[in-house]
Amino acid sequence: MTDAGTPVFEQLGLLGCGLMGGSFALAMKKAGLVKRVVGYSKSPSTTDRARQLGVIDVEAPSALLAVAGADIVLLAVPVAATESTLKAIKHLVTPRMLVMDVGSTKADVVQAARGALRDQFGSFVPAHPITGSESSGVEHAQADLYAGRQVILTPTERTLTDQLGKAEAVWSALGCRVRSMSPESHDAAFAAVSHLPHLLAFAMINSINAQPEGDVFLSLAGPGFRDFTRIAASDPKIWRDILLANRSELIAQSRHFTQALQQMEQAMQQGDGQALEDLITLASETRAHWRMGARRAS
Amino acid sequence: MTDAGTPVFEQLGLLGCGLMGGSFALAMKKAGLVKRVVGYSKSPSTTDRARQLGVIDVEAPSALLAVAGADIVLLAVPVAATESTLKAIKHLVTPRMLVMDVGSTKADVVQAARGALRDQFGSFVPAHPITGSESSGVEHAQADLYAGRQVILTPTERTLTDQLGKAEAVWSALGCRVRSMSPESHDAAFAAVSHLPHLLAFAMINSINAQPEGDVFLSLAGPGFRDFTRIAASDPKIWRDILLANRSELIAQSRHFTQALQQMEQAMQQGDGQALEDLITLASETRAHWRMGARRAS
Repeated sequence: MTDAGTPVFEQLGLLGCGLMGGSFALAMKKAGLVKRVVGYSKSPSTTDRARQLGVIDVEAPSALLAVAGADIVLLAVPVAATESTLKAIKHLVTPRMLVMDVGSTKADVVQAARGALRDQFGSFVPAHPITGSESSGVEHAQADLYAGRQVILTPTERTLTDQLGKAEAVWSALGCRVRSMSPESHDAAFAAVSHLPHLLAFAMINSINAQPEGDVFLSLAGPGFRDFTRIAASDPKIWRDILLANRSELIAQSRHFTQALQQMEQAMQQGDGQALEDLITLASETRAHWRMGARRAS
Repeated sequence: MTDAGTPVFEQLGLLGCGLMGGSFALAMKKAGLVKRVVGYSKSPSTTDRARQLGVIDVEAPSALLAVAGADIVLLAVPVAATESTLKAIKHLVTPRMLVMDVGSTKADVVQAARGALRDQFGSFVPAHPITGSESSGVEHAQADLYAGRQVILTPTERTLTDQLGKAEAVWSALGCRVRSMSPESHDAAFAAVSHLPHLLAFAMINSINAQPEGDVFLSLAGPGFRDFTRIAASDPKIWRDILLANRSELIAQSRHFTQALQQMEQAMQQGDGQALEDLITLASETRAHWRMGARRAS
């Protein structure tokens, strides 16, 4: 333990050397929280690149070998690969090992981890750091990707108190604010504030693309469009998995959204300027007062 | 005329001293394109503030007096105020005066200008600079708001060649790329790439707000949400006018969007990962290759 009570780990086993995993390795090294990083990626060229970039110290030829000797393991793969990856490492997971993920959905991840890890499920602390980028890949990994962000932990009735405490200490030491909630509350919230915006951004780009004049329209777009659609450039496989994993909550959010859209369209069609202004004012004031990661008053 | 052929104006009559108008005045002064700025705003305190900030040199007590002696006039008011403002200055508009607006819709502005200016309609060059900010008001005016942006001019059959040439020269001198098209083509394009994103952002915020857990959801939102919803903080009166003025094109775009959204929902409900990935890939690649203001190959 360091002076501040943060554990220093001997070896990080990194499963998935992309943007999220690579940035975690860099952050842990920079904070002096780990002595050695052993990395594994499905694609050997990615693992190789991660070593060349100094993101990992040693390349492992399999997930299992990346975990051998590790006292902390980070799973940073598309959420649909959670179960198979955890099954591959199961035999080396111990009660003294902290295993975390960084997935954007949690109910499916918890279910997959429960099934894959069985007796060792208590070592697993489900985690979702609220950060990311539309640029994926280890080339975009950066030590400060997590600094100042929130991290949501969704422990279960079987999560070991020791591992939960270590997880909280690690993320705090990386500059994150840690919050805990149930996997189900997590998924309902992120359907609304993350998965829905992605879905809408994807759909809007496709909607413009499908029109004969789509290219001309896009050539005229300005800074509002740029920021609104930034997340539409996100990685297709990662987001396919997220949208599918959380589809029931997401479709429910899409229904809420469609109602709010129809309300605004109705005001437009009726030429009801006051109703339209009231709806825009509500949205504008809410957004103007919103601050990312702000603590709630209550 | 300057060496580069850009006219230098004696006096800018600025009607509306907000973000767009104030930034134009600052840009014109910085570029040495105008000697004196006389400003008018509906609210005397705004005009006063604009003078204190050095955005305008002289406060005018009426729109008409702001135009007296001007050789260039910029109308920077909400689009619904176009007709009444142009009627108020009509008696001082001459064929040697360049009158422009900065409105986000053009068919309604052209119709209003035609009706208000009558014989002097040829002096009016409808303009839409593709820039802005979710922060409104003269306090946020900045000399470089227009630099590097596109400006769309929508001249009519009656626009005077001289004034159109001057308009092109002025915006070019401010660092803008000038494009011309019909008011109708303009409105169709901006319904898709500007008004629709605003509508969706307003609706999404209201949709979350309307849910009992809305506050908790918002407290968890991260950088993707931040950028996606930035435009939702836009000025309600300005956007009420834009959405109403262009409502037929906008509702048509909203229909296209809803179809694209339903296509994605269908893939999710059917658990069709390949179809979903294909739709996301299409959006992701389109957005990743898009560059703001890029010239088209054809």
